Amino acid sequence: MCQLLGMSCNTTASIRFSFTGFAQRGGCTADHVDGWGIAFYEPTGSRMFLDDRPASESMLAEFVRSYPIQSRTVISHIRKATQGTVSLANTHPFTREWLGQNWFFAHNGDLRNFHPALDGGFLPVGNTDSEKAFCYLMQCLRQTFADRLRPPEWTELAPVLARLNREVARYGNFNYLLTNGDALYAHCSSQLASLERAHPFPMARLVDCDIRMDLGALNGEVDCMVIIATEPLTLDEPWRALRTGESKVFVMGREVWSHHEPETIRFPQPTGTAGRAWPLPKTGEAGLAAPA
Amino acid sequence: MCQLLGMSCNTTASIRFSFTGFAQRGGCTADHVDGWGIAFYEPTGSRMFLDDRPASESMLAEFVRSYPIQSRTVISHIRKATQGTVSLANTHPFTREWLGQNWFFAHNGDLRNFHPALDGGFLPVGNTDSEKAFCYLMQCLRQTFADRLRPPEWTELAPVLARLNREVARYGNFNYLLTNGDALYAHCSSQLASLERAHPFPMARLVDCDIRMDLGALNGEVDCMVIIATEPLTLDEPWRALRTGESKVFVMGREVWSHHEPETIRFPQPTGTAGRAWPLPKTGEAGLAAPA
Repeated sequence: MCQLLGMSCNTTASIRFSFTGFAQRGGCTADHVDGWGIAFYEPTGSRMFLDDRPASESMLAEFVRSYPIQSRTVISHIRKATQGTVSLANTHPFTREWLGQNWFFAHNGDLRNFHPALDGGFLPVGNTDSEKAFCYLMQCLRQTFADRLRPPEWTELAPVLARLNREVARYGNFNYLLTNGDALYAHCSSQLASLERAHPFPMARLVDCDIRMDLGALNGEVDCMVIIATEPLTLDEPWRALRTGESKVFVMGREVWSHHEPETIRFPQPTGTAGRAWPLPKTGEAGLAAPA
Repeated sequence: MCQLLGMSCNTTASIRFSFTGFAQRGGCTADHVDGWGIAFYEPTGSRMFLDDRPASESMLAEFVRSYPIQSRTVISHIRKATQGTVSLANTHPFTREWLGQNWFFAHNGDLRNFHPALDGGFLPVGNTDSEKAFCYLMQCLRQTFADRLRPPEWTELAPVLARLNREVARYGNFNYLLTNGDALYAHCSSQLASLERAHPFPMARLVDCDIRMDLGALNGEVDCMVIIATEPLTLDEPWRALRTGESKVFVMGREVWSHHEPETIRFPQPTGTAGRAWPLPKTGEAGLAAPA
């Protein structure tokens, strides 16, 4: 199973601390060794870095860890291939332009017998179920808002995506992060956890390597952010597990919308690709809260 | 004026040598300091690196110079902004997916009063004339080949592009490189030069910094490649200037198609953005051949 990481902030922030722990999952603390990628929305535009080498031994990942890119929104993905060959073309995030905005998408899960009718407006470059699903989402958004000259607000997009999530999630686990930089959209079929950080910021300790950081020294009193990941990245913070069937929207470092589809199925993970067990905390040590 | 660099090879090769000289133009040997980008087609897919800092002092450019990415096709661009703000969104190359292939485009020139009717299938993310022209080319290709499920071959695309080049080049200098990885398409309004390299490979000397390289030691007898750049990158090789109005296609390291529109205009460069003078060789020293 792949690993997802996302960040939404009310001001620009560096994802170096979280990415340092996350990148360990690409070969060190977990066997997600089939490439990785990260997309950043910076104040003047977006860019993406992709590599088909394991994140834990990638020179490019080392560069990203050492380069304090300031962004409001980030999504990242470490791949454990279940469908599609190990290749750059199959490395997440995937990107497409719609209505003059770059959209990025990263998926964790395995969609089976998923063959949506694609009209050619968005077609996969690689051969994963994930990119096919992304093209289908973008096609449906374009069809739904065909009369628009400007991108719709998240308030309009969120219910449309929730309906699409319900539909696609019938084919397999559809844990994903999708963003146009303005909002970060998430859906959970089986595994995704979120964390809101605001003043007072704690001393945080990474799950995947022995690094602590005083987040209070890095952030101001009005700063806030949401981190979202397949598995919690830190031990000492109140991560909350999303429920199966939950769609959420994060804007400027806050959760702004949530919707639950109780009939969504949590599919078993494909044999041999199971992730590591969650670092379930002892009571009072780290708060992995029960789903709301 | 911006600077363009492209490479087409019959086998995978590293662009490190050419890029090392080219990157000097982003702040050292020329004042193209408004960002840079490079797109690679590697054996398993494509990826792109963008930066809005000057290439000569960019940590990311340093990474690209030190990282031997093996690719068949590369395009790169160093920006001297004439239209649009200095931003990541305005940094070339631009990319769009069409018929399941990633297309990359980089432009040198300045199109004035160019406002094509865009139907929404491809829209600019930034605010440059260049990205607008790219969206227009992609829209016209999609319309021309609307019945296709697979990308057309270059033999079909080249004459369509040549017709579009003639049309767009009426609005200003339209020197560009465009590629889907299979073929590298070039158009010259005012300044572009190409170089074919094959066995026996020479000892080459960069124009922009004091580096020589024995290309024979790096390439085999059957290897061949084309390098295309706004200005010649080396002193000791037979660069050929493209003519105003010339469209060319390069595949697997060879020029495969050429077309000339004699009525194409070479516009004067905008005041204050003139590039450095070409390193015109003395006779017999470096062969900047007269246009064919």
